[in-house]
Amino acid sequence: MARIVFKFGGTSVSDVAHVRRVATRVVKAFRAGDEAAVVVSAMAGTTDQLDHWTREIGGMMDAREYDTVVAAGEQITAGLMALALQSEGLMARSWLGWQLPIETDDAHARARIRHIHAAEIEDRLARREIPVLAGFQGIASTGRITTLGRGGSDTSAVAIAAALNADRCDIYTDVEGVFTADPRIVPSARRIERIAYEEMVELASLGARVLETRAVEMAMRNGVSVQVRSSFHDTPGTLLVDEDEIMEQDVVTGVTYSRDEAKLTLTGVHDKPGVSASIFGPLAAEGVNVDMIVQSGSHGGERINYTFTVVERDMERAVRAIEDARNEIGFDSIVADANVAKVSIVGLGMRTRPGVAQTMFATLAERGINLQVISTSELKISVLIDETATEEAVRALHAAYGLDSA
Amino acid sequence: MARIVFKFGGTSVSDVAHVRRVATRVVKAFRAGDEAAVVVSAMAGTTDQLDHWTREIGGMMDAREYDTVVAAGEQITAGLMALALQSEGLMARSWLGWQLPIETDDAHARARIRHIHAAEIEDRLARREIPVLAGFQGIASTGRITTLGRGGSDTSAVAIAAALNADRCDIYTDVEGVFTADPRIVPSARRIERIAYEEMVELASLGARVLETRAVEMAMRNGVSVQVRSSFHDTPGTLLVDEDEIMEQDVVTGVTYSRDEAKLTLTGVHDKPGVSASIFGPLAAEGVNVDMIVQSGSHGGERINYTFTVVERDMERAVRAIEDARNEIGFDSIVADANVAKVSIVGLGMRTRPGVAQTMFATLAERGINLQVISTSELKISVLIDETATEEAVRALHAAYGLDSA
Repeated sequence: MARIVFKFGGTSVSDVAHVRRVATRVVKAFRAGDEAAVVVSAMAGTTDQLDHWTREIGGMMDAREYDTVVAAGEQITAGLMALALQSEGLMARSWLGWQLPIETDDAHARARIRHIHAAEIEDRLARREIPVLAGFQGIASTGRITTLGRGGSDTSAVAIAAALNADRCDIYTDVEGVFTADPRIVPSARRIERIAYEEMVELASLGARVLETRAVEMAMRNGVSVQVRSSFHDTPGTLLVDEDEIMEQDVVTGVTYSRDEAKLTLTGVHDKPGVSASIFGPLAAEGVNVDMIVQSGSHGGERINYTFTVVERDMERAVRAIEDARNEIGFDSIVADANVAKVSIVGLGMRTRPGVAQTMFATLAERGINLQVISTSELKISVLIDETATEEAVRALHAAYGLDSA
Repeated sequence: MARIVFKFGGTSVSDVAHVRRVATRVVKAFRAGDEAAVVVSAMAGTTDQLDHWTREIGGMMDAREYDTVVAAGEQITAGLMALALQSEGLMARSWLGWQLPIETDDAHARARIRHIHAAEIEDRLARREIPVLAGFQGIASTGRITTLGRGGSDTSAVAIAAALNADRCDIYTDVEGVFTADPRIVPSARRIERIAYEEMVELASLGARVLETRAVEMAMRNGVSVQVRSSFHDTPGTLLVDEDEIMEQDVVTGVTYSRDEAKLTLTGVHDKPGVSASIFGPLAAEGVNVDMIVQSGSHGGERINYTFTVVERDMERAVRAIEDARNEIGFDSIVADANVAKVSIVGLGMRTRPGVAQTMFATLAERGINLQVISTSELKISVLIDETATEEAVRALHAAYGLDSA
């Protein structure tokens, strides 16, 4: 007997027929003697619709009211899932964030979970009931509904699995697991059977959409055994494990990409002490995250150029923040370019094998793909390239590191 | 300065543009110095959609989960309305049933309000904030969300107006007030400027859809001044008042109808003591409400016929309940007929003027409309007729009682 948290994403509960269909997976495990708790997202499209309405209303966005509106999506699916399980003859009960409660801080729309009161859920599990929890939401100490930010339901599921000491947290989604690359771009991509948490954190934060970065980090910190599985095919999926549980480590585990990037270049920046702080301070104040940064000399050493990347939706805000700080910074021009993509290779193996970067650069150079920015860490190498070359680059790297299936 | 509760129905908040539009009515009153609290329904169609999903899921319907699902509709509009008011530069805050709380009994899907904790709302009003309350919902002592049944948002609004000692409860809807008859059927129908609570209770329960019967009863009991107004036209609407505030009373105030009726006839019933209880006991046990009842002798006195009406959606359940009790009752046959309609005249004036019923019967007889069942009370006379004659009957009665506008 195992204790399993089942998490179903939006496409897995996109309508009543889907809710009924994925419920049978829970029923099967339960009938086999397992304890089951379920965490649900909103029906696919619902959160976008609710989000859209809050923006359409106009005015300054009050995040407290935003959270009240969008949290309704998971409330609906939690109730429907409980009904679906009941229709299979099982005892099931929905639980909203405020009902357990799931305590969060009061950073509305991007709240962090502080504590999950799981006693009631433990009690229900002991009575062979199936608790169905609305993902993505909690309650602040003010008594207002909070949400965890987009993709927060994965985080809810992992947090609940940790609170319940679950044997496994199964994240059901519309793909069959984590792949060596996006199968829509690389048809020869293979499902990864076991991946280290650290690698998954990198893949998730570098563009792989299958799991939320926060959820993976939380799983790693709490030792939650996470499995990514298909809601629609009965295939094994991908298991997240500790590094030492992976027997034979490939050099590169996966190739990923993100088109949601924008490049900003400041030319003719006066090179004086504190200039970096004068550029990135205003961006931080605006809540703009800067990813890759390159500084390059020019004009005989007195003037330099700065190139950095932000997510595409922050581009205009970043330009404005820099323009507003023009006097403090001192620069000639700022150029923004959204036609860029970040392509990354990720793998624990690259720590111990030299030449990994060289293979990447040579592979892209052979195809005439220009590297605009390079950024590396222990587990990954990312390059910024022209957006139109994204697919070619991903396919070429996937082949170059021997990831293509036979 | 007045304290006003504004209630907006589903068609008044059917999309974001409508929410913004009706919000301006609140803004206007607020800027003129009034205190304003707002109660909202779900967007038109939302409750039906959510209700439909819960039925589509199948299985026995658990009313606790039903309530969790459908209450999401008002949650969404409460948040959106708060945002709309904020976008006009006002302070506004949404409040869900569990947040005040609005305590109800635990009769899910048809809960009754027990107590509204209004202290927080009073406090916010004093600070010139506009509380926006989700209608239709409350919380049971079990901590689960309850809903008040269809149309329950009117009841929420009146209850909140009572709890706040509001000067007025303005029910904004998609019609310009209460009319002497349904204007879609009787083009010459007139808006009623002032109507007695008692008359409105009858009109509402006999088919007029403009206000929920429960809400009117609650307003009457608590002396809440209710005004029914158009969300879309700046017209005076209809004011609910005490009987003695109406100067000149028409004999008949309004003509109304309901097509949502079914007639059941039991023939050859053994006439013995307790036979009525043996028929209506099983129906009550099934939760079927019986409206009009006629008992008629036949077969030389030993056997009698019973005719009674139920709402159309209960017809099959009623037939089954009677069939199941066939041995206890003893009857020849049961015939069900959904092609009937109930047409009613309502008016305080008919208490003191004789001949009102005779005018009704003669008017219908002239047109060859057969009366299948007649039911009277102090304030109304209802007749059951063939459904196809509904519109003709309503128009004829409207004219006969001098209600047609000049």
